[in-house]
Amino acid sequence: MSKTFTGVVPPVLTPFTAADHPEDLTSLPTIDHAALRTQARRLIDAGVHALFALGSSAEAVFLTREQRREVIESVVAEAKGEVPVIAGVIDTATPRVLQLVGDAVEAGVDGLVATAPFYVRTHPKEITEHFRRIHAAAPELPLFAYNIPVSVHVPLAVDTLMELAADGVIAGIKDSGGVDGYTRAVVEARNERGLDDFTVLTGSEMTVDLAYLAGVDGVVPGLGNVDPVSYVELHNLLVQRDFEAAAKLQTKINKLFRIATIGDPARMGGSSAGLGGFKAALVHLGVFPAGVMAPPHQPLNDQELALIAQIVDEAQVREP
Amino acid sequence: MSKTFTGVVPPVLTPFTAADHPEDLTSLPTIDHAALRTQARRLIDAGVHALFALGSSAEAVFLTREQRREVIESVVAEAKGEVPVIAGVIDTATPRVLQLVGDAVEAGVDGLVATAPFYVRTHPKEITEHFRRIHAAAPELPLFAYNIPVSVHVPLAVDTLMELAADGVIAGIKDSGGVDGYTRAVVEARNERGLDDFTVLTGSEMTVDLAYLAGVDGVVPGLGNVDPVSYVELHNLLVQRDFEAAAKLQTKINKLFRIATIGDPARMGGSSAGLGGFKAALVHLGVFPAGVMAPPHQPLNDQELALIAQIVDEAQVREP
Amino acid sequence: MSKTFTGVVPPVLTPFTAADHPEDLTSLPTIDHAALRTQARRLIDAGVHALFALGSSAEAVFLTREQRREVIESVVAEAKGEVPVIAGVIDTATPRVLQLVGDAVEAGVDGLVATAPFYVRTHPKEITEHFRRIHAAAPELPLFAYNIPVSVHVPLAVDTLMELAADGVIAGIKDSGGVDGYTRAVVEARNERGLDDFTVLTGSEMTVDLAYLAGVDGVVPGLGNVDPVSYVELHNLLVQRDFEAAAKLQTKINKLFRIATIGDPARMGGSSAGLGGFKAALVHLGVFPAGVMAPPHQPLNDQELALIAQIVDEAQVREP
Amino acid sequence: MSKTFTGVVPPVLTPFTAADHPEDLTSLPTIDHAALRTQARRLIDAGVHALFALGSSAEAVFLTREQRREVIESVVAEAKGEVPVIAGVIDTATPRVLQLVGDAVEAGVDGLVATAPFYVRTHPKEITEHFRRIHAAAPELPLFAYNIPVSVHVPLAVDTLMELAADGVIAGIKDSGGVDGYTRAVVEARNERGLDDFTVLTGSEMTVDLAYLAGVDGVVPGLGNVDPVSYVELHNLLVQRDFEAAAKLQTKINKLFRIATIGDPARMGGSSAGLGGFKAALVHLGVFPAGVMAPPHQPLNDQELALIAQIVDEAQVREP
Repeated sequence: MSKTFTGVVPPVLTPFTAADHPEDLTSLPTIDHAALRTQARRLIDAGVHALFALGSSAEAVFLTREQRREVIESVVAEAKGEVPVIAGVIDTATPRVLQLVGDAVEAGVDGLVATAPFYVRTHPKEITEHFRRIHAAAPELPLFAYNIPVSVHVPLAVDTLMELAADGVIAGIKDSGGVDGYTRAVVEARNERGLDDFTVLTGSEMTVDLAYLAGVDGVVPGLGNVDPVSYVELHNLLVQRDFEAAAKLQTKINKLFRIATIGDPARMGGSSAGLGGFKAALVHLGVFPAGVMAPPHQPLNDQELALIAQIVDEAQVREP
Repeated sequence: MSKTFTGVVPPVLTPFTAADHPEDLTSLPTIDHAALRTQARRLIDAGVHALFALGSSAEAVFLTREQRREVIESVVAEAKGEVPVIAGVIDTATPRVLQLVGDAVEAGVDGLVATAPFYVRTHPKEITEHFRRIHAAAPELPLFAYNIPVSVHVPLAVDTLMELAADGVIAGIKDSGGVDGYTRAVVEARNERGLDDFTVLTGSEMTVDLAYLAGVDGVVPGLGNVDPVSYVELHNLLVQRDFEAAAKLQTKINKLFRIATIGDPARMGGSSAGLGGFKAALVHLGVFPAGVMAPPHQPLNDQELALIAQIVDEAQVREP
Repeated sequence: MSKTFTGVVPPVLTPFTAADHPEDLTSLPTIDHAALRTQARRLIDAGVHALFALGSSAEAVFLTREQRREVIESVVAEAKGEVPVIAGVIDTATPRVLQLVGDAVEAGVDGLVATAPFYVRTHPKEITEHFRRIHAAAPELPLFAYNIPVSVHVPLAVDTLMELAADGVIAGIKDSGGVDGYTRAVVEARNERGLDDFTVLTGSEMTVDLAYLAGVDGVVPGLGNVDPVSYVELHNLLVQRDFEAAAKLQTKINKLFRIATIGDPARMGGSSAGLGGFKAALVHLGVFPAGVMAPPHQPLNDQELALIAQIVDEAQVREP
Repeated sequence: MSKTFTGVVPPVLTPFTAADHPEDLTSLPTIDHAALRTQARRLIDAGVHALFALGSSAEAVFLTREQRREVIESVVAEAKGEVPVIAGVIDTATPRVLQLVGDAVEAGVDGLVATAPFYVRTHPKEITEHFRRIHAAAPELPLFAYNIPVSVHVPLAVDTLMELAADGVIAGIKDSGGVDGYTRAVVEARNERGLDDFTVLTGSEMTVDLAYLAGVDGVVPGLGNVDPVSYVELHNLLVQRDFEAAAKLQTKINKLFRIATIGDPARMGGSSAGLGGFKAALVHLGVFPAGVMAPPHQPLNDQELALIAQIVDEAQVREP
């Protein structure tokens, strides 16, 4: 198994069309598949190396099983084999994840990303069995373990990862833990054990330069939805080992990240502010018709939207 | 809306039949509906006041949407209107919960229990909107807010509850927070605001006497699956305000709770040990044919099962 | 060793005189020993069963070693042997706690209260050694283990407590954990092992009735500084096993507790709001000349002080 | 104020002589000042740029006030002005920290490091006042804010730091938070605001290369006690911007860090294992006569000591 998912692998956001009757609380927004494909195409044109559908920033856990399948189908259809597509199968526990795996396989994905079980707090032995069963259900697809303690409330132990990697259960990790030493430790453990095909992707979009210096193989940047060209450029600098230039570009990119922090914490949570900022930027850039999020996300107000537009303008985002 | 769910409302465990080929990791256990109905009947015969299907201890988050619906159907069929049935609609976010609400309504439940959204960390305003949308989708059914920070990682603020209660959105709370002052504070806030119909149920099965003294209306005891007769007796003592006798009985019941702590923490998590202990006890009592749990739960070993059987024998559990 | 510390054991607040030059940041408030003795006398006159000096609400960790010793001396001098005095020896690790133990012994206390080490996260074996060394330094004094995970960030395991109790190291626990089942579990473990002299005190001032029903021996109520008469009355009702009347009185007392939640969370932390509320109430009642707290506590503003005065008036606090 | 503390600033460990009667629990180990000065000299000879006395790894919170002062005196005496000495003034709250500040100033330190208050959970406004008062007590000395949420249980907000830096209260930060984006965010905020003299030191000894790429000014490596030569070499490579070579050396250094993880977690906490490993290595290298730690730290056993010696031998630590 060679490394399929390296480089810039943006987690494609899921655009929505506003509910027909927003004042009716039972009326829900629907997926805007045209906008989804527009964005997938835009990312491919920017030179990204793969697409990640149904990540956390795709509002995966806000989507029904049917919607999740549709999202994969649209992304796969647009990718046309030009870039591989990896899909999140994020759910509370094994039986439900296995359903999602079946759907994803049928929809034609090239790889899978799964978290540890959540809601119920789990033991390393339970986590291990969880991944073994997922792999058994789709043995032909590379499976990535998704380390995201902020959501799952338990980190994936390095030893657990290495055991699963050595047994051929997982092909890599998508690390959204944000902890300095952890990513480094995973890379060093991989290298010491000669597990050369084990892929390490960082989800920390503001420290990509550091992660590459530590030895990761790629990045899954939510902000890459807004400025994919810069992330591809950053990757190229890092592949050329020009860390000085990369650090400068990273700092420039990070100014754009302020769009994810404009939403008022008195009125909404971090997900509403962050995704709302990303989506508002894509509306401002003309990519998404609407910045709608799945409920119960809270919308940004006009003042916040204006501020985001200003930050996007200042960043001079280049279109592919 | 008068109080429908008070008294002893056990969260009915979900029994499974072992997978046909357990050595095949893609082969999953299936729900044993006969055993499920046997247990529902046993609980009704013991005098419980309502049944709670698809709670956390029912392994709800380990069940597929289809399985969840089947569980409700079996419980409702067995209850035959003799006692009301309330069902958990526990899922990550609003759209998926609304699907479960629709299923539960069709399956004929008499009430709903929902947590705050999880996986994504949420804001009080998002939590409020979540419950408002659930209520809008099933306005005729009493909706209980489920406070379970160990799973959802955010407590439900007392003010949020009172706002939702005053607006007729929620009919009560199922409190599994385990915090002394919180349950008390909810009861006192309810009383001060004259929200007399707001029902407070505790999920703390080892301190039912204390919770009733604090003013709760009932209890949702996981251990009530094993010894429903004692919990009904405990309720009756508490309704008669015989707190001394209740405390003695509570302490006697708590000895039985040791069955939930036998599983070796080196080999399994708290859910495997706890549910495994409950199910093993029901096997020993002849109620469940098997103690199988949904994956990735880890099984108890023979030595642990023997110890659990011994504790059950010592407790002299009375059958209805 | 019979039980010395049972019943109502209020943690005596430490009053301060404002710094001479508050605008000079190097000028600190000083202890108002006259007010401290006035309050100690007031509590004794109200009928409390013992005094707890240098608890968390005494701002013990804000006091220098010299100040701590002076506080004990004042409280012991005022107690005159009429009630026993127990003193906190709260510090980060063993060597510093042993210094405080020496000081407390010299100052004539009748018992000691120590937490697990903090700042450095500790292991049960380290916690056990910590208490063993404290007991070795003052073997003649009853030593209470102080369970306060909100400050120490680790709970005291029931098994650890029982091991230390069986070995005669600790005489009891002061439990400020606030968790339903924990206090119950400690009491039940004590009773099962026949450790009859092991004293359990709750620090949860809003659920004293529940804790007594669970079997505790007494309460350490911060709010008892403001309304000691009611806490003594509550204790008496509970000793008479009149739980109904006790619950009614508890709910009445809890209305007064609102004084601890008036401080604006946008401007101060919970300690400033809580202690500030208690001290402001004592100023309003004419017991303390000033409501000053040790830095970096933030002061309440005039509007907040007025609100607290109003709550105190409504509560009709009875003086001894 | 120019930058005084940059480059390699190791937190000097505090060596102890075993208690005279270790079987007597009241007999405590004493500081081995000769060994302390030997180590300080060894670090200076290795080319470190400054010395940090009384950091967390110096067991500062295990030392009495008198011992802390003696430690500073020894380190200052050995430094002889060849390198500057910065001292930790780590304590629970402002009044006690101010005592330590006075002692440190008298003992002749060149800078101070303070954490936010701990034990009592604090508010940003309280943290700000805490640092303002410390600075007011020693306005001539550069004051570093110590970000160490694992001990203090609250991170220092970037905005709080920038406010204090702009007002001349703090001269820098020692960041032991271990979070990717945080260090980056502090550096970027400093640069955007033109606070060029604000010094950022990382405490993450395993990712120094990454931190320098992110723009920090130096490192406070506990492991630098064992292998100071390599850390100075690492610093030099990073100053020359040879990130590739630095990353290789960092990975080599990290193999040595395994000495901090040998202690059995069934028998001791992370501090005992970590400091025990460092001290055992210094014993093996002939620098410290004994590996004794302050109580209640637990000692490593012979097998663990042998393993640590082996790791040290494999690392071929170079002496200055």
